[in-house]
Amino acid sequence: MVRLAPGQPRPSTTTRRADLPAQRPALRGDSSAAVLRAVLDHGPIARSNLARLAGLSAASVSNLAAGLLERGLVREVPEAAGPPGFGRPHVPLDLEIDRLGAIGVHVAVSHVTVALLDPRGRIVEGCELPHEGPSPAQVTAGIAEQVARLRAAHPERQVLGVGVAVGGWVDAEAGVVVDHPVLGWHDVPLQAPVAAATGLATFVEGHSRGLLRAEQLFGRHAERARRSAVHLFVGNVVDVAFSLDGRVHEGPRSASGRVGWLQDAVSGQGLLARAAALGVAARHEGELRVLAEDDDRLLELFTERSREIGRAVATLVDLFDPEVLMVFEPGFCWLPTVREALLAELAGLGGLADATDVVVPSSFAAASLAVAGGGIVLDRLYADPTSVTRVAATST
Amino acid sequence: MVRLAPGQPRPSTTTRRADLPAQRPALRGDSSAAVLRAVLDHGPIARSNLARLAGLSAASVSNLAAGLLERGLVREVPEAAGPPGFGRPHVPLDLEIDRLGAIGVHVAVSHVTVALLDPRGRIVEGCELPHEGPSPAQVTAGIAEQVARLRAAHPERQVLGVGVAVGGWVDAEAGVVVDHPVLGWHDVPLQAPVAAATGLATFVEGHSRGLLRAEQLFGRHAERARRSAVHLFVGNVVDVAFSLDGRVHEGPRSASGRVGWLQDAVSGQGLLARAAALGVAARHEGELRVLAEDDDRLLELFTERSREIGRAVATLVDLFDPEVLMVFEPGFCWLPTVREALLAELAGLGGLADATDVVVPSSFAAASLAVAGGGIVLDRLYADPTSVTRVAATST
Repeated sequence: MVRLAPGQPRPSTTTRRADLPAQRPALRGDSSAAVLRAVLDHGPIARSNLARLAGLSAASVSNLAAGLLERGLVREVPEAAGPPGFGRPHVPLDLEIDRLGAIGVHVAVSHVTVALLDPRGRIVEGCELPHEGPSPAQVTAGIAEQVARLRAAHPERQVLGVGVAVGGWVDAEAGVVVDHPVLGWHDVPLQAPVAAATGLATFVEGHSRGLLRAEQLFGRHAERARRSAVHLFVGNVVDVAFSLDGRVHEGPRSASGRVGWLQDAVSGQGLLARAAALGVAARHEGELRVLAEDDDRLLELFTERSREIGRAVATLVDLFDPEVLMVFEPGFCWLPTVREALLAELAGLGGLADATDVVVPSSFAAASLAVAGGGIVLDRLYADPTSVTRVAATST
Repeated sequence: MVRLAPGQPRPSTTTRRADLPAQRPALRGDSSAAVLRAVLDHGPIARSNLARLAGLSAASVSNLAAGLLERGLVREVPEAAGPPGFGRPHVPLDLEIDRLGAIGVHVAVSHVTVALLDPRGRIVEGCELPHEGPSPAQVTAGIAEQVARLRAAHPERQVLGVGVAVGGWVDAEAGVVVDHPVLGWHDVPLQAPVAAATGLATFVEGHSRGLLRAEQLFGRHAERARRSAVHLFVGNVVDVAFSLDGRVHEGPRSASGRVGWLQDAVSGQGLLARAAALGVAARHEGELRVLAEDDDRLLELFTERSREIGRAVATLVDLFDPEVLMVFEPGFCWLPTVREALLAELAGLGGLADATDVVVPSSFAAASLAVAGGGIVLDRLYADPTSVTRVAATST
């Protein structure tokens, strides 16, 4: 039996007021946000049921609902009320779906996508603008032109802001693209120029985090994604976003989620190069995926890569044990053979007995990457409705 | 310019009360815990300064302090009061350091450690009991015997509970060792037998998470560890714990933090086998580390392995971008050559310009792994002092 050495007591000196650390502000519990999120999830819905969902008194909900109505975020929908019963009729509330909008932007290597989304993250109208080795100024000008066009075409919608999603390392707080190796952008400010060019509140964020925020708000697996989720994006850049206890992790300068070890093995550039070696030219992976539906050689390229991705997914599942892991990759999202190969690789590694329920395709592969940008703005709205509408009001 | 297809509206039906999900209980903000943690961090400290730190009124702090005094968790230390000033003298509060204790247990492959710790996580007395391929019943009996001995030797201390730290996959909520490949334990209940054998409130948890909780409470980098931290444990089992926004992540059944991909490459079993091939027999890595101080061949074994660990650390830093990453591995903690090799490998991978401030040795390498067990109980105490002392009161 080995005796352990006892620990040393520390000197006992009283902490004085001057020794105290600086105070941190208390977190503001925003009941208005709780009500708005309940309308997002359950609208149209009566105020009495909102009170139950948000854990608030009827009087509070009535006040908060009045504020949201005044700001034009929700509306009353008498047509959705049920059959008349006893007492005063309940006029349900719903999101102001037709008079609000958010601009979602995604900057990809081969093109930029700009779309007007409704408050449920659905595309009202949008377009893709191809580009080659674009400068930040060109991208900003393109965004501003499309935003102006979309706002002119939809004057009935109050636009809450612009969310710009970009791959690589994006410092969300500073609004700067720190490093996008394929675009060759380093320390490129994007928030300030886009805000200046559009006159709208602008938020910039990594696309994987934007998509994860959209999954939490509107995705097929939103409930699980709000608890704990990992989002793996495989394209020209490869990155990971994750949320634990519902919060998307950023890290200082938003530097978390980099997976350099995976980039070389599975990036879209490599896939396009291997396709080119087979004589198939494609602008991006999405095109290649469509071609792969009728070309077994291309299908095999996707399948091979999916085994590598499967090994990475196994590592992420082991490490995070998330309730759901979303994969945004054209092969996995669209080609059943590829999806099966990835899941088979995962099963072979012995981690998950049945991964099909945990490892799922992105809810937005069919939509547009502009949803990633929309997730960035709309997440702000649902986290703090008063701040976003205040910013929108002052910047238009 | 490619036009995007607009999204489809969803049918608008009002959510009825019967459609609402089950209500979740609101989180209880425990002010008593805030006061106790402030005493842990800053004691001895006057009530007026506690009020500032915890963001509470003087009257609330006075009430809460009375409750903590009554439960015997804090004490008044008039001898720590400063020079007399105007008005009523402030009698500072401090932790009841001499009359409280927690039992910390660590179950390793070659031995079990049992120690009595004070509320600051320092060892009062403890011992290591060697074993070989032990059964859970043997381990439980050994723990109970030592707990009885320690309590008899220190009758002045109220023991709050037992924290048992084990490597591998431990389901903390169920108190079960789900899988410890080296011990060969699968689905072994440990919480219930130890609680029954000791008559004390018992908590079981993975050792990496126990050590991380101890780092957050008492470690050299506690302030950063409370924000975001990764803890890498390299021994006979290799596992990772991480905390984001201050909360240690568990995942369903506490299954997060497994790093099977790393286990084969760097586990202690492999190192001991390579040392044996050189004709050096050691019971565990700690012994090997002591021998390596005078044996260049062993030092080289540790150094080689540290390069592999460095690559894993780079992956973890990229993915989590933690404020601090603690490594519990004898070479890194004790042998400067090994530590330099790991940091050099990390620097070579280009992630962190200067990792020495981020990637640091465990605060407890010099103490004892029993601190991991202590971290498990004491974390409960500081998270909710009323519940732990209630449990302790009913089970003794």
